[in-house]
Amino acid sequence: MTGGTGLFISFEGIDGSGKSTQARLLAEHLRSTGREVVLTREPGGSPGAEEIRALVLQGDPERWSAETELLLFTAARRDHLERTIRPALARGATVICDRFADSTRMYQGLSRGDLRGAVDTLHALMIGVEPDLTLLIDMDPEAALARAKARATAEERFEDFGLPLQQKMRAGFLALAAEFSGRFRIVDGNRAPEAVAQDVRAALQAQA
Amino acid sequence: MTGGTGLFISFEGIDGSGKSTQARLLAEHLRSTGREVVLTREPGGSPGAEEIRALVLQGDPERWSAETELLLFTAARRDHLERTIRPALARGATVICDRFADSTRMYQGLSRGDLRGAVDTLHALMIGVEPDLTLLIDMDPEAALARAKARATAEERFEDFGLPLQQKMRAGFLALAAEFSGRFRIVDGNRAPEAVAQDVRAALQAQA
Repeated sequence: MTGGTGLFISFEGIDGSGKSTQARLLAEHLRSTGREVVLTREPGGSPGAEEIRALVLQGDPERWSAETELLLFTAARRDHLERTIRPALARGATVICDRFADSTRMYQGLSRGDLRGAVDTLHALMIGVEPDLTLLIDMDPEAALARAKARATAEERFEDFGLPLQQKMRAGFLALAAEFSGRFRIVDGNRAPEAVAQDVRAALQAQA
Repeated sequence: MTGGTGLFISFEGIDGSGKSTQARLLAEHLRSTGREVVLTREPGGSPGAEEIRALVLQGDPERWSAETELLLFTAARRDHLERTIRPALARGATVICDRFADSTRMYQGLSRGDLRGAVDTLHALMIGVEPDLTLLIDMDPEAALARAKARATAEERFEDFGLPLQQKMRAGFLALAAEFSGRFRIVDGNRAPEAVAQDVRAALQAQA
C-alpha cells in the first residue's frame, strides 16, 4: 500500500481505551524479536507535524473552524508520512502509529458529519495511504472515560467529552471497523493490559 | 461570488512590482470617498493565518514539502476567509487583498506544475471563492527584482530568486490573467506609483 517493504500498523480507540499502552507493548514485543520498530503518534510524529499539532491544540478550542483544523491535521499527516512513516517502511521497519486517518474520520464524522466527503477527498489527494493493519482497542466507554479523566493534561481538548459523546465515539470507531473490515481487527480492551496485548499479537500473526 | 454585498479585490504581481503600494493607495482612495475598506494580505490576514504564515516561512526552506506547504497555505487562506474576508464582505465593506489564490497557483505552477490539479481541487473544496476583480501589476522583471532585493528582509524566502525565475513568474501571472480573463485586469506597473494608481482606479470604475 505504501510502496515500502515494512508493515504499517495503526492503533485506534476512544480516549482511555489503552491504545497507547498497547502500541508501546507491541513495539517492545517486536523489538524483542529483533525487528526494527518505529513507534509514532498522531497528530504529530515528525518535528514539523509536532509544531502543527501544537498550533492546533493550544489556545481557545474555537480558534480554528472544523475546516481549517482538517487542513492543518492533513498538513501534519503529510509531513509525518514523508519524514517518518515512508522512510521507515522503505528500509523495512515496522511502523506502529498511535492514531492515524481513522481518528480524523471518526472525530469529524461525530462533530461535522457533512465534512466526511471533504475528509475523504483530502485523504485521497494528499495522503493516499492506509495502514496494513488497524487494531481497534474496543472498551466500555464509562471505564475508558474514568481512565482518560484521571490522566487529563492541559492538552486534552479532545478528551473533554461526557459519557454520551464517549459512547458515540465508540460507535463511530465500530462503524469504521465495519467500513474498512479488510484491515481492521477489533480487540476487547476490557481486560488487563497483558491479556489485551496477547490478543494484539495474535491479530498481527493472523494477518501476517 | 462570496454571498456578501461587498466587493472583493485582489492584487497580484511579481515581487517588487509595487502591488502592495498599489493596494494601499487604492484603499486610501476608496476610504477618502467614504467607503469602508479592509486592506489585508496573504499569506496571513487573520491572527490564525498569521501564525500559520510564520510556521511556513520561518526556518529552513526545505523543512516543508510542496504538498505540506500547499495544505498549510490553504489552511491559512480558509482562516483568513472565515475571520476577515467573509465578515467584511457581509457588512458591505470593500476587501482589498495583497495576493490571494492566484499567487498559490503561480508559485506552485512554477516549481511543481504537477500539483496544479491538487491546487484546484483544494481550492474548490475548501475555499470556493474568487475575487470579483484581480489587478495584475505587470512590471519589467529586472527592475522589479532590483526593487525587491533592495528591501529584502529575513522573511523573503519567496523573493530569493534570480532574474530567470522572476521572468517565469511574470509569464505565470500573465498566463493566469488569460485563464481567468473575466476578473483579471492587467495594469502597466513600469511608471510612477501615482500614474499606476490612476489606471488601477480606472480599472475598478470600468468593472463597477
